[in-house]
Amino acid sequence: MDKNNFSRPIDIKRVKVTDPFWQKVQETVRREVIPYQWEALNDRVEGAEPSFCMHNFRAAARLNERRARPGFAEPQYTFRGFQTLPEDKDNPDPDRFYGFVFQDSDFYKWVEAAAYSLQNHPDPELEANVDGAIDIICAAQHESGYLDTYYILNGMDGAFTNLKDHHELYCMGHLIESAVAYYQATGKDKLLNAAKRYADYIDQCFGPEEGKCKGYPGHEIAEMALFRLYELTHEEKYLNLGNFFLDQRGAEPNYFLLEEKRRAIDEGRHEPENDPSPYAYYQAHKLVREQEEAVGHAVRAGYLYSGMADAARLTWDESMLGACERLWEDIIKKKLYITGGIGGTAVGEAFSYPYDLPNDTAYSESCAAISLAFFARRMLEISPKAEYADVMELAMYNTVLSGMALDGRSFFYVNPLEVNPAACKTDKRLEHVKPVRQKWFGCACCPPNIARITTSAAAYAFTEREDAVFIHLYMGAQLTASNGMKLTLESSVPWEGEAAVTVHTDEPVSCTLAFRLPGWCKKPAVAGPGGMVPDERDGYAYFTGIWRDGDKVELSFPMDVRLSAADPRVREDMGRAAVTRGPICYCLEQADNGENLHLLRVDAGALDKAVVSETEICGHKMRALELEGFRTELPPEGAPLYSDYAPLKESPAKLTLVPYYAWANRGEGEMSVWVRV
Amino acid sequence: MDKNNFSRPIDIKRVKVTDPFWQKVQETVRREVIPYQWEALNDRVEGAEPSFCMHNFRAAARLNERRARPGFAEPQYTFRGFQTLPEDKDNPDPDRFYGFVFQDSDFYKWVEAAAYSLQNHPDPELEANVDGAIDIICAAQHESGYLDTYYILNGMDGAFTNLKDHHELYCMGHLIESAVAYYQATGKDKLLNAAKRYADYIDQCFGPEEGKCKGYPGHEIAEMALFRLYELTHEEKYLNLGNFFLDQRGAEPNYFLLEEKRRAIDEGRHEPENDPSPYAYYQAHKLVREQEEAVGHAVRAGYLYSGMADAARLTWDESMLGACERLWEDIIKKKLYITGGIGGTAVGEAFSYPYDLPNDTAYSESCAAISLAFFARRMLEISPKAEYADVMELAMYNTVLSGMALDGRSFFYVNPLEVNPAACKTDKRLEHVKPVRQKWFGCACCPPNIARITTSAAAYAFTEREDAVFIHLYMGAQLTASNGMKLTLESSVPWEGEAAVTVHTDEPVSCTLAFRLPGWCKKPAVAGPGGMVPDERDGYAYFTGIWRDGDKVELSFPMDVRLSAADPRVREDMGRAAVTRGPICYCLEQADNGENLHLLRVDAGALDKAVVSETEICGHKMRALELEGFRTELPPEGAPLYSDYAPLKESPAKLTLVPYYAWANRGEGEMSVWVRV
Repeated sequence: MDKNNFSRPIDIKRVKVTDPFWQKVQETVRREVIPYQWEALNDRVEGAEPSFCMHNFRAAARLNERRARPGFAEPQYTFRGFQTLPEDKDNPDPDRFYGFVFQDSDFYKWVEAAAYSLQNHPDPELEANVDGAIDIICAAQHESGYLDTYYILNGMDGAFTNLKDHHELYCMGHLIESAVAYYQATGKDKLLNAAKRYADYIDQCFGPEEGKCKGYPGHEIAEMALFRLYELTHEEKYLNLGNFFLDQRGAEPNYFLLEEKRRAIDEGRHEPENDPSPYAYYQAHKLVREQEEAVGHAVRAGYLYSGMADAARLTWDESMLGACERLWEDIIKKKLYITGGIGGTAVGEAFSYPYDLPNDTAYSESCAAISLAFFARRMLEISPKAEYADVMELAMYNTVLSGMALDGRSFFYVNPLEVNPAACKTDKRLEHVKPVRQKWFGCACCPPNIARITTSAAAYAFTEREDAVFIHLYMGAQLTASNGMKLTLESSVPWEGEAAVTVHTDEPVSCTLAFRLPGWCKKPAVAGPGGMVPDERDGYAYFTGIWRDGDKVELSFPMDVRLSAADPRVREDMGRAAVTRGPICYCLEQADNGENLHLLRVDAGALDKAVVSETEICGHKMRALELEGFRTELPPEGAPLYSDYAPLKESPAKLTLVPYYAWANRGEGEMSVWVRV
Repeated sequence: MDKNNFSRPIDIKRVKVTDPFWQKVQETVRREVIPYQWEALNDRVEGAEPSFCMHNFRAAARLNERRARPGFAEPQYTFRGFQTLPEDKDNPDPDRFYGFVFQDSDFYKWVEAAAYSLQNHPDPELEANVDGAIDIICAAQHESGYLDTYYILNGMDGAFTNLKDHHELYCMGHLIESAVAYYQATGKDKLLNAAKRYADYIDQCFGPEEGKCKGYPGHEIAEMALFRLYELTHEEKYLNLGNFFLDQRGAEPNYFLLEEKRRAIDEGRHEPENDPSPYAYYQAHKLVREQEEAVGHAVRAGYLYSGMADAARLTWDESMLGACERLWEDIIKKKLYITGGIGGTAVGEAFSYPYDLPNDTAYSESCAAISLAFFARRMLEISPKAEYADVMELAMYNTVLSGMALDGRSFFYVNPLEVNPAACKTDKRLEHVKPVRQKWFGCACCPPNIARITTSAAAYAFTEREDAVFIHLYMGAQLTASNGMKLTLESSVPWEGEAAVTVHTDEPVSCTLAFRLPGWCKKPAVAGPGGMVPDERDGYAYFTGIWRDGDKVELSFPMDVRLSAADPRVREDMGRAAVTRGPICYCLEQADNGENLHLLRVDAGALDKAVVSETEICGHKMRALELEGFRTELPPEGAPLYSDYAPLKESPAKLTLVPYYAWANRGEGEMSVWVRV
């Protein structure tokens, strides 16, 4: 580990995104998603499941007034699908908790997205809204600093008794993330102070010292949040608490097992066996430093690995970095969809076994792709290797974006690589797969998560250290480095591969500009100002020297239409190829190609005849592809099911492909990423 | 419908099976399965889940004695996975019911298999065992005739209150089947009288008359059983009761919906909606005559359709026959595995949507293939068409037999067409798929069902009417037709296609011998005695004339190694072929071909080089196939997961295939029926 290589994300306050692609996404989030989510958090969206998120905070702050009404009856409640719900959803008990145990986190994610958005685009009305909500949240906080409405409303005697399944530490993590972001965006510290008070309280309760709880989060995020809080405040206790959570995870005796035993005794059940393997779902089956394989719930895993990478950087911890590198390798060589998604199975929303990457039953949760981008950027911060940026880019341009409709008004939780709507409706094995995006979810983790990563996309595109600026993603922007040098980045990515960076400076500046050479480009060309020759390392071109106003680096990354094959160990993709161009993964849709997409076959020998053309879906301009291929002719209905094998009868066909992120924006229909060759 | 075409299964008392293939199966069932099952029914099998079947009958007959022992504590019981089980399995309460609600049926199926076996092979010890058990069963029967230990032991006030999910009428069906078989085998009528008393009681309780219950079985079989009882006794009430059950099924108001409503009211729940579609699982979503598609639980469906075919024949009912023909078509054109299995999905052990025939998650329950053979034979009884016999043969030689290990000591409930043991162990989507056969099941429907169909296989091979004998399956045998003419059938099927039938008669006999021309044979050759020219109709060769002693019909059905393709609507089989020879479906096994079977590809152009050779698995002689093909080379471990598409690197490989019914007899390993072409 070479500390000289470390870099940190650029402060997005110093970036103005001008990129037409990302600007459009950020505008959609600002105009549609953030206001819509605020309505959703307040249960004001017609036809959507109520969230009860703000209801809970108000209830905890005793701000809900019991409405006097004739014949008012004591409201009933019930526990359904892990949610507490009122019998009559229009008449919730003003003093009760409803929703999932982690409902608080939806608010924090929304604040975080709002904070990033405010940095990109000031909006006094939104800011006033957030401030008002923060007042409610702070009013709900206990004297002690404890802040989780589930236990505040259901009884504090239960607090910290079920770390495995309940989400007090997870909610603290999201609280910290939002509080830091909002402080950085606005300079206002009310939420930050609340977050610190909660973290301080957790620090009093958890730790290696005698008498303190030896538990750790059932759903990770607190680790990376605490490290972020430490980097803002430089208070060591937050660093130590984050490290404690990491090193305690999977340690013997297994804390989750102890919890289960305690619960079994209380409930008069048989004690569970001394077997930590069921806790692989929580990545708590062995010490994190000893983990070799990415397992369990994919979002939890991505958040954990992100925290581990932070710890490795902050404490120069080689063994932690070694674990991160092994887990990274395991994901990208055995468990990554070509769309940048992770999580092959709906069972536990989890990684499946190596090379099990089913297309139709894929889980590939939007949040999991986001967590992979988190992990990738943190690995990049330690070692600038194009491999990390390639995967980060893949996740961000494909599965992260496919999680949201182009108009920002509906969302996917699950991102399959192959969909047959008829099957989704009749086949319970596919009940997690929706052929069209949903307005909102009871468990609404994905929409606000998409909002917070897209609004902070610049922090993934650019990192810097004292003597260098790294351009990881070619996102058009004007940015000011910490050394004061201004840069203008113009780029036609993801549709074409031309980019240029122009330096603006009053005085000559000595530093390095490092440009990623994308893995998808076979023959990158880079040209610096006269006389400056780049040094190439790990897929980055380093230009080091004295920069003067007007200096320009020109980059050209020719984009071919590519056919990719999976390792033959991936059984589902045998004999099939995926079509990509630059960072964009393409797919076939019924809207362009008719039904029965599985009958189509691409002609690999005619790839040079591929046509790239501009198209528009829902007012979004993008490039579509047309490839030469064939369509299997169907025998007449009523033909025998089985007959003597003969080569398929095919007729020539044009295959039209659109970007994967843009699928399902033209009504319900079949979709397929992998095409027979 | 032409009554002159009707035929009935030959009385198996008049058949001696000499066929080496079927004799071996029947011997295995006689020597291994029947004694083993008797031990299992009495909870004496080490390491197997207890059945409690005989325990329940003894308890109902008050024959279980409470064992005096020091510190004897009141045994506990619990309800687990639809079973009632004692807390301590070695100490069941002598007066309680345990197991599934349909546990009684396991005994009846065992008696039925024992009855057929006694006809093939007298065995005084077995017969004495059965007689003793029948005494217990009869002692358990109520004065009224009611006989279902679940309600006798749990309280008669519950009887007939949950026809949908409980199995009183199903158990009656199996009781009748066993009682008729045992009477036909031994002439003993004690069990037959018990069955008639139960049926009479049901007839008093159910029927169109006012005040009688309008319900019908949740799990079908009573229908065909009642028709069988009618054909033995000629008592019309049994025919009428069977027809009532058929015509009442799905009639408005839907009886199962009424039951659900009653239960909802009793339990203070919301009443279910007026929607019969959930009862498609039970084929009770619409009138049976109006059903167009095979839906729901596959075994239930097969039993229902068999009963419908019986009804069509017994009452010359064209509309009932029309429904049978439509449902048959739907199965064989859209829902039949090439192994003769049915039931594409584990969800509800059911038919999936049209053309959804997944190989790895297949359900294809052994009992469902058996039910398909039942249905096929009943359709054959109405119209002798080779199409029915082809499917019956496919089911019997492949999926029915694959349900049982070659040594008769372990069983499959589920018969997948593709197995990767590593996936079965880690992937919950495959938790119903076992890579090795199990010793016994708590829900032990399949093993005794396999026993009863294999021991009565001759009744599927041969049917007859006054003036004709039909040979549907080429099963070596000596048989005596009802007109007294004796026939000797010699056959090398399923391994070679040569067969001959010799007539033995003292006097010349005028009649027809009809021989099926198997669909798997492209150029059948048949030659009768001098001057007799066959008439070909619906895939049967009819020889009609005067038969003299020594007359012989010689048949030759050359067997090619065939590659079959599925309709391209079957997505999972695109680009793949299945290998068959005669009635036998073949598969690749890891034992012969190493792991990663999906890397193998068969060379369709080199089929003429296929080698057929004799092999032996577990002492069973059979034919193996060796085909020319290719194996994809794997890139080294750690190679990138995705890379530029290039034609797969392959090296020539020999593919060894063994009969599907014989798979998983050489330890755990991969298996695949469909091979890439």
